[in-house]
Amino acid sequence: MSMNDQIIATYWLETALSLEQASEIIVSEQSTGTFLPLPNETDSLKMSHRARIISIEQLDISSFPSLPGAKVPPGSKSEYRRGIVKIAFPYANIGPSIPNLLATVAGNLFELEELSGLRLLDLELPRQFLQRYEGPRFGITGTRELTGVHGRPIIGTIIKPNIGLTTDQLRQIVRELASSGIDFIKDDEVHGNPPYAPLPERVKAVMEEIERAADRTGKKTMYAFNITDDVDPMLRHLDTVVNSGGNCVMVSINSIGFAGLAHLRKHAPVCIHGHRNQWGMLSRYPYLGMSFTVYQKLCRLAGVDHLHVNGLNNKFYESNASVIDSVQACLTPIFNPTDTALPVLSSKQWAGAAPETYGTLRTIDLMNIAGGGIHAHPGGPGAGYRSLVQGWEAALEGIPLEVHAASRLELKQALETFGEK
Amino acid sequence: MSMNDQIIATYWLETALSLEQASEIIVSEQSTGTFLPLPNETDSLKMSHRARIISIEQLDISSFPSLPGAKVPPGSKSEYRRGIVKIAFPYANIGPSIPNLLATVAGNLFELEELSGLRLLDLELPRQFLQRYEGPRFGITGTRELTGVHGRPIIGTIIKPNIGLTTDQLRQIVRELASSGIDFIKDDEVHGNPPYAPLPERVKAVMEEIERAADRTGKKTMYAFNITDDVDPMLRHLDTVVNSGGNCVMVSINSIGFAGLAHLRKHAPVCIHGHRNQWGMLSRYPYLGMSFTVYQKLCRLAGVDHLHVNGLNNKFYESNASVIDSVQACLTPIFNPTDTALPVLSSKQWAGAAPETYGTLRTIDLMNIAGGGIHAHPGGPGAGYRSLVQGWEAALEGIPLEVHAASRLELKQALETFGEK
Repeated sequence: MSMNDQIIATYWLETALSLEQASEIIVSEQSTGTFLPLPNETDSLKMSHRARIISIEQLDISSFPSLPGAKVPPGSKSEYRRGIVKIAFPYANIGPSIPNLLATVAGNLFELEELSGLRLLDLELPRQFLQRYEGPRFGITGTRELTGVHGRPIIGTIIKPNIGLTTDQLRQIVRELASSGIDFIKDDEVHGNPPYAPLPERVKAVMEEIERAADRTGKKTMYAFNITDDVDPMLRHLDTVVNSGGNCVMVSINSIGFAGLAHLRKHAPVCIHGHRNQWGMLSRYPYLGMSFTVYQKLCRLAGVDHLHVNGLNNKFYESNASVIDSVQACLTPIFNPTDTALPVLSSKQWAGAAPETYGTLRTIDLMNIAGGGIHAHPGGPGAGYRSLVQGWEAALEGIPLEVHAASRLELKQALETFGEK
Repeated sequence: MSMNDQIIATYWLETALSLEQASEIIVSEQSTGTFLPLPNETDSLKMSHRARIISIEQLDISSFPSLPGAKVPPGSKSEYRRGIVKIAFPYANIGPSIPNLLATVAGNLFELEELSGLRLLDLELPRQFLQRYEGPRFGITGTRELTGVHGRPIIGTIIKPNIGLTTDQLRQIVRELASSGIDFIKDDEVHGNPPYAPLPERVKAVMEEIERAADRTGKKTMYAFNITDDVDPMLRHLDTVVNSGGNCVMVSINSIGFAGLAHLRKHAPVCIHGHRNQWGMLSRYPYLGMSFTVYQKLCRLAGVDHLHVNGLNNKFYESNASVIDSVQACLTPIFNPTDTALPVLSSKQWAGAAPETYGTLRTIDLMNIAGGGIHAHPGGPGAGYRSLVQGWEAALEGIPLEVHAASRLELKQALETFGEK
């Protein structure tokens, strides 16, 4: 089996058995094997189709199990060994299909009683996956071209309030934002196609305002319409956006699945803005689920151009270290330099956050989205946008915020309003 | 807001705040609200679109958090309150869309730092969801008609070994099984459309054998072909199966997502056999994720006819109590008596398991799938199937297995081979 013919999955696991035994059980469960010997399970079949343990690295031992229902061998101590295990699955068992890949590398493994903890940490895929998945259509370069933003992060906002605006109220907000020349606006993920404000009506109003503002400012704001839905309605929403001159759609990736995302990528001539809501369900408990490393690879392969990664000092549970890792993961090529996705920083973002964000991440290939930090700016959302641009100017030029703010009203107001009192 | 105009989500939650505060944060996060007051967030908007707490039931207090990253208010003791909270979301915010429903009732909630545990326990949906989702096309009654099995569970097997059989080996196995008159056969979930044995080739071989056996026995075995894949290939595989006379397809639900499942339901004139692999990732840690109650409702609404529920005394971590609950959930109507799905019992199933299964579950509306228990039967897989039928005869008639086995060779052999020594 050459490197090109295998899929390598890296797991963190915990077991009351030996790490070797537990790894063998994973191999049997997900390639060939059952609890009884089988007539057709020949040696030659096993040779070609059985997965294979590449390496086992022992870590610490825990005195209690991280997950319930784990089996302890009779007579053994209550000790749960932890380790990192790499397993190679034959590519020939699967083919270039993310849905089938998941049935193998994840499958029933999380339910095994021989394991008291399991997390899929990484996946190395052979290039055959490129036969089906083309990765981001626009990615970072394409998004910069469409927005005309160079030399700094792309700055945007979420429509707020999340839900409940009439189309006319939405129109007013977009008018003000687009007139200010803001780079990017997105729908909230809880706002899809609700009965009281159907998407086609909203798309029409938003695009009229964006085009009108572009005529005056020369800059066309990118708007990510939330087209999350079942497959056919999602593609209908996509058509609505494209036919109205929109250049971006947003989806809740976990609502439509990787299969839905790959399907959208095939049809979408516009940017795909990927929201990762529901991600906490797959990841917050450290001894179960999947790492963001794996998740973002599959999202990018399936075609997202932008991917949410939370923000530094966010309102969620996630540490800054984890956010930093996520940003770096999105910016690391998988197969090609163009298959990176723009990391989207959001949550508690505002003008004053730029220096720490830049100082920590040392990249401008970011999308920086502020909700309250733009909408609640005392000068209005347009001023809120300008304050973020000014905050990033200061960050990139290494000028203290207060110094830069001396001659910039919007940044000054932002520091007064949102800064630490 | 009338009962028909709301979606009621029930959560188990854990928080270092009061349950009331934590519930209000959920409401704000997923309906209207941000960390700063917003100009357009009027009282009338909140009235129509804000979610609302229906009830809060206090449970125990834990001295440590179930999930990492939870915030403890300054000066407060390290106490984590647990409770059951019901929240009503306005249907008007969402519309009849499972993908958008999930972005609201799950969304970012699992990542909130104000929560140290969150599990979605139940969902009550208004009938408007029936506008889009028709539920199972065949369900229990339809599956019985297609298989011709009445008065007992539908008995079947998985193709084993899981992976690696040539199409010709597969043909031999199916020939023997179909000749024995077995009710049902399914592909393994790790076997989709691999390069070495493409689905079209397998479908042709399998259906030839099934039709040939049916000509002799008068009974057409139902075969669930694993068509799990991205959207277009999945529908191509569906066409292959339908055009070859197949009457069932299988999907890994979590690989294609609820959106993929609903899309398949729209196109499939055949039974949909739902495999829940990857489910452990969403459910094994009791303080995160979602209950099977919620999961199976969404699966059924989106259109599964059969749904895997593990088996009693299974090889996985799951308790019998949990399996029993799952079976009952699948058999409980949501909107209509016909929207139940056939619970599929698998894992460590064999002839001798029937009496306990029937004694515990008290229903015959089951699919009972045995892998090793059929394939490793000393008389061959055909004898394995007959042993399960005989085991169920004994269970249903209340006859001890050994007594029934006295005049039934296959059951006798099964008891000798698989019974406790």
